[in-house]
Amino acid sequence: MARVDEGAVPLAELWRGGVVESTHLGHAVICDAKGIVAAWGNPAAVIFPRSSCKMIQALPLLETGAADARGLSEAHLALSCASHQGAHLHVDMAGRWLADLGLGEADLRCGAHEPLDHGERDRLIEAHEKPCQLHNNCSGKHSGFLTVVQHLKAGPEYVEMDHPLQKAILAATEEVTGESISGWGIDGCSAPNFAVSVVGLAGAMAKFAAAKPGAGAREDAMARLARAMARYPELVAGEGRACTELMRAMDGRVAIKTGAEAVFVAIIPEKGLGIALKVLDGNSRASEAAIAGLLVKLGVLEAAHPATVKRLNPVQKNWRGLVTGEVRLAPGFAASL
Amino acid sequence: MARVDEGAVPLAELWRGGVVESTHLGHAVICDAKGIVAAWGNPAAVIFPRSSCKMIQALPLLETGAADARGLSEAHLALSCASHQGAHLHVDMAGRWLADLGLGEADLRCGAHEPLDHGERDRLIEAHEKPCQLHNNCSGKHSGFLTVVQHLKAGPEYVEMDHPLQKAILAATEEVTGESISGWGIDGCSAPNFAVSVVGLAGAMAKFAAAKPGAGAREDAMARLARAMARYPELVAGEGRACTELMRAMDGRVAIKTGAEAVFVAIIPEKGLGIALKVLDGNSRASEAAIAGLLVKLGVLEAAHPATVKRLNPVQKNWRGLVTGEVRLAPGFAASL
Repeated sequence: MARVDEGAVPLAELWRGGVVESTHLGHAVICDAKGIVAAWGNPAAVIFPRSSCKMIQALPLLETGAADARGLSEAHLALSCASHQGAHLHVDMAGRWLADLGLGEADLRCGAHEPLDHGERDRLIEAHEKPCQLHNNCSGKHSGFLTVVQHLKAGPEYVEMDHPLQKAILAATEEVTGESISGWGIDGCSAPNFAVSVVGLAGAMAKFAAAKPGAGAREDAMARLARAMARYPELVAGEGRACTELMRAMDGRVAIKTGAEAVFVAIIPEKGLGIALKVLDGNSRASEAAIAGLLVKLGVLEAAHPATVKRLNPVQKNWRGLVTGEVRLAPGFAASL
Repeated sequence: MARVDEGAVPLAELWRGGVVESTHLGHAVICDAKGIVAAWGNPAAVIFPRSSCKMIQALPLLETGAADARGLSEAHLALSCASHQGAHLHVDMAGRWLADLGLGEADLRCGAHEPLDHGERDRLIEAHEKPCQLHNNCSGKHSGFLTVVQHLKAGPEYVEMDHPLQKAILAATEEVTGESISGWGIDGCSAPNFAVSVVGLAGAMAKFAAAKPGAGAREDAMARLARAMARYPELVAGEGRACTELMRAMDGRVAIKTGAEAVFVAIIPEKGLGIALKVLDGNSRASEAAIAGLLVKLGVLEAAHPATVKRLNPVQKNWRGLVTGEVRLAPGFAASL
């Protein structure tokens, strides 16, 4: 285990007028079921996975039997792993989910924030309505949490570290990463977030990738969650977002997920591979470029696809539409791909 | 001269749950009239100053006599150096300025973007109005540009590199930085932005700091612009912003200015010092922490002032108001202050 800045290497650069304006360091690891296949930077660097671990946090939803007892659809499973942008689609689905449980927005513990979706944002402003907790990008995850809570007949303060749900998530995190968790923080949505190494997170994603439906509760849950994410890219993030557009470009074959402070993970079932990466400074333009580069390298994403180009080598335009520069992978990282 | 990532050192960190989540490297230089007084990272690192050099770009406004011929106020000079947030105050003032010149919004070449000010943003959305070029954070700078253009009877395409205005800004940049400019890019507002070293920019700020009113056209222009910025902090940025709040905390004694991609400069007349810093990855939480740390070190900003604490050591809260972590100066940088 190492501090996040130990051994970080250049991953991406911002160019302007033929000059490097800004650069981004980080760590990236590709794992299969046996361990590291390739790595850049320091695999032992400790990171907060933030929202990139939502599929781990959703394991109890399936493993407790809560999802099937409630008859949740594959779309619900995708929304439980989402950092959605609070578009009508997402808010409406989370609201109906809670209503089906006999619960409401006030039972959520994620807090409210202005939706990233501009259509819904503008509707709220015009209607003089404040955003509610359903607009929180994590409201699907929390609806999944409440489904488990109800199934377990546990208490309402489900984001407390000593709540049975969070204990189950901690146990699942330790099992899938193979690490003993010693650090945790509070996430933007108030849920605990467990510190893991980049290789631990990549290894967990490799387990998701290798999981077979029906091969025991854990593997079945992993396979179903990864498939749900890959099949409902619009629920996992939203229009214009990297997760949604890149998953669409891979046509349901690969599940990917971003996390705050520039974490990105990928689950590639057809190759039995998992990826985790963290950009040291938290800038998502770099994590998006890096994950796109790795997915192209592994042959699951077309380099020329518009969704790829938009992340791998995005042209920067200003308010008059003039080209001002571009993001590029750092030369050493690019040469290794 | 060096690439921006050569020799960068840790300046700031984001902590969560007792663990470092993200870190930021960069360069910082303090200069007096003779040269470097103190430096962190690589003073020779080449950067784009972006909006941090607006007081240099405004030199022709005074040096050509355009400002005085038009009877511009000190407030106009402050707005000409601003990255404002498009609040009513800023939009209205830029609009009246252009009207006084017999010009209008369509004569601007900065492009339009949604204002950062939420009051004005919400008003536009409710009124189904699109933002106009007056909302661009650079509309004050461009109003100053148009004042020079009219005074010189030059052509309307004033952001072209071969326009007399941009040639004058290039000459001024070379003179105040003492550097021969070899690289330039197009800024967000379409104006050319000249690549300079961190020490070159800090040295230029020291010249602004040492400039005396009435001591020749250059010094007089420098002194008047720095004073205007320090006296009108609400025009230079806006409510809630670092430039505005920190300048208010220093009570008109110091002029500071941020630039995109995490550049920050300061002009400290009472000490004859200039500061320039650049965070490698472009994250302004780190540039704001670093400039606050340097201003406290130099004794011109109170460490305990709420505006200082908000930048130097901001507590991170989530959507439910729970404390999730904090930004801190990197230990080595902090220890050197």
